[in-house]
Amino acid sequence: MKITALFKPKAAFPFELVKPEIEKIEQIIQEQARAFDPGVEGYVSYVCNTSGKRIRPALAVLSGGSTGGVSEEHRRLSVILELVHIASLVHDDIMDGATIRREMPTAAAKWGNALSVLLGDSLFAFALELATDFENPTVCRRIAKASRDVASGEILQTQRRFDFNLSIPEYYKIIEMKTAALFGAATELGAVLNKQSEAVTASMLSYGLKLGTAYQIYDDCIDLVGDEKAIGKTLGTDLTKGKFTLPILYLLEAATEKQRAKLHHMVLKGEPMDTSILAGIADYEGAIERAVKTAKGMLVEARADLICLAASDHKDALKTITEYLDGLLDGCRA
Amino acid sequence: MKITALFKPKAAFPFELVKPEIEKIEQIIQEQARAFDPGVEGYVSYVCNTSGKRIRPALAVLSGGSTGGVSEEHRRLSVILELVHIASLVHDDIMDGATIRREMPTAAAKWGNALSVLLGDSLFAFALELATDFENPTVCRRIAKASRDVASGEILQTQRRFDFNLSIPEYYKIIEMKTAALFGAATELGAVLNKQSEAVTASMLSYGLKLGTAYQIYDDCIDLVGDEKAIGKTLGTDLTKGKFTLPILYLLEAATEKQRAKLHHMVLKGEPMDTSILAGIADYEGAIERAVKTAKGMLVEARADLICLAASDHKDALKTITEYLDGLLDGCRA
Repeated sequence: MKITALFKPKAAFPFELVKPEIEKIEQIIQEQARAFDPGVEGYVSYVCNTSGKRIRPALAVLSGGSTGGVSEEHRRLSVILELVHIASLVHDDIMDGATIRREMPTAAAKWGNALSVLLGDSLFAFALELATDFENPTVCRRIAKASRDVASGEILQTQRRFDFNLSIPEYYKIIEMKTAALFGAATELGAVLNKQSEAVTASMLSYGLKLGTAYQIYDDCIDLVGDEKAIGKTLGTDLTKGKFTLPILYLLEAATEKQRAKLHHMVLKGEPMDTSILAGIADYEGAIERAVKTAKGMLVEARADLICLAASDHKDALKTITEYLDGLLDGCRA
Repeated sequence: MKITALFKPKAAFPFELVKPEIEKIEQIIQEQARAFDPGVEGYVSYVCNTSGKRIRPALAVLSGGSTGGVSEEHRRLSVILELVHIASLVHDDIMDGATIRREMPTAAAKWGNALSVLLGDSLFAFALELATDFENPTVCRRIAKASRDVASGEILQTQRRFDFNLSIPEYYKIIEMKTAALFGAATELGAVLNKQSEAVTASMLSYGLKLGTAYQIYDDCIDLVGDEKAIGKTLGTDLTKGKFTLPILYLLEAATEKQRAKLHHMVLKGEPMDTSILAGIADYEGAIERAVKTAKGMLVEARADLICLAASDHKDALKTITEYLDGLLDGCRA
């Protein structure tokens, strides 16, 4: 039995402001699918249509808008980051054996693992190919590095599954690579394309990394407390798969030796463990609360990174996103 | 029972000429592994050590040497192309369920599919990251395009498995993408880095594409006639997996309707089919002979592409490679 997270975010995602740009970006993504061989286009088109909230494009657009204006280059950056993200989701779904994403069958479920491996590769190569078109070679290099971070972060996570020695700093390193790197690339490069000072680009990178880290902690909490129907994906799988996320690491840290031993035993047995089982062993609610607080603290820091920006609707929207996520985190406490 | 191909190539692979360069390249590849997170480095190092004949680096070096000289940029190009190739092998081995490559366990066999998907992704992203360091952005773009071709070619091949309507032009398109694209990138970019004329770079691209296509046809023949021990990998798997290669397409073309129906039936049953079974159904030797002749014809054309180059040891070596492959193709006739 799961506690249903109550989603009453204090702020709405500032979608209206970015909507016209996101619509243009959607159109470019669909057009780009046509750059593939006709035999491949259908697959590309399917995964591009089913996989996303377009958070990374929104961040790139807002970063551009708050550092001098959104140009055609920001739209291209958005498309590329989203393609890298989609490629990583296609591969994630293979590894996780996931059959449903955003209420649609995953590529792996529809066409099998072999094709999905290649489809992810193609998308990823295509994204990097598009990235070579920027005048400033730094942009392509940063995108390639962020993409490598995504894969390397996932490797580290896979490698450390069922490893009870995983430390909290190691957890942070993993999620910074696998999730925050692309968020950071979006906000940093949005400013780089507008030829901003090093101080501003560093602040924008910092904002993206903190937002991305907080977002991953939220995602990790939701895996424990969320309602599958409301979230639209299979939940409760991290622990069964031996992925120790921040709330679980906090739980283990606060547990007595006896409680820890019991948890270890249950994790190693690989049985599904829901909230009620965890709560019966150790201070589950305290661990969730602590993870929520940690993430909320990062959002405070992310907001502070925005101080260097001149006032604008886009700057406000970057702030609103942190408030929106703050509200979602409150929902995890329910 | 398999006919053992007799390998008596007329010419040896011109390894001595490129050996000093290849040794430097090996060293760079090993050094590059250290650019990865320590948790990832070991995997990278393993697959870089086990996967290769370094044909693509040899081609990039020889192309450089025959168009003005081998520079540090050619070495970097070689490393990048080899990393892309290794990444694609890591993913191929997942899809093929291969457990052995070059007499060593594959990454998939050693660490599982999930980690291997990510390892391939990391290597690939890293290769593209290195590619952004070239002064001429064309180089990175061409590498990204060739990488996408490799994945897209594999998708088309996977998609057309067990498709008896696969035409010979479609087969060529698939192998040009999945194999020849990287050969072509090696020889073309070797010339591009030396700022050669469009005519010379086009000839070098053409040479690489033809050599790569002939090499794939050889590989497809060897899958049917080769000796596993001599070749060092599992053979005879293409047809069982529904991959229709040139010799099989020729066999089907020459077969009577009754023979074709029998072959279709057997392929769809998915049973291993060795030489003696194929030879019992249709003109197997004639089909191999025709495929060998086709590949040899391409090598003649590849040699003709070298006419634009001034005389040099490196040019001679490019010619010798075609003669070496010509000799290997003769071995398939045994």
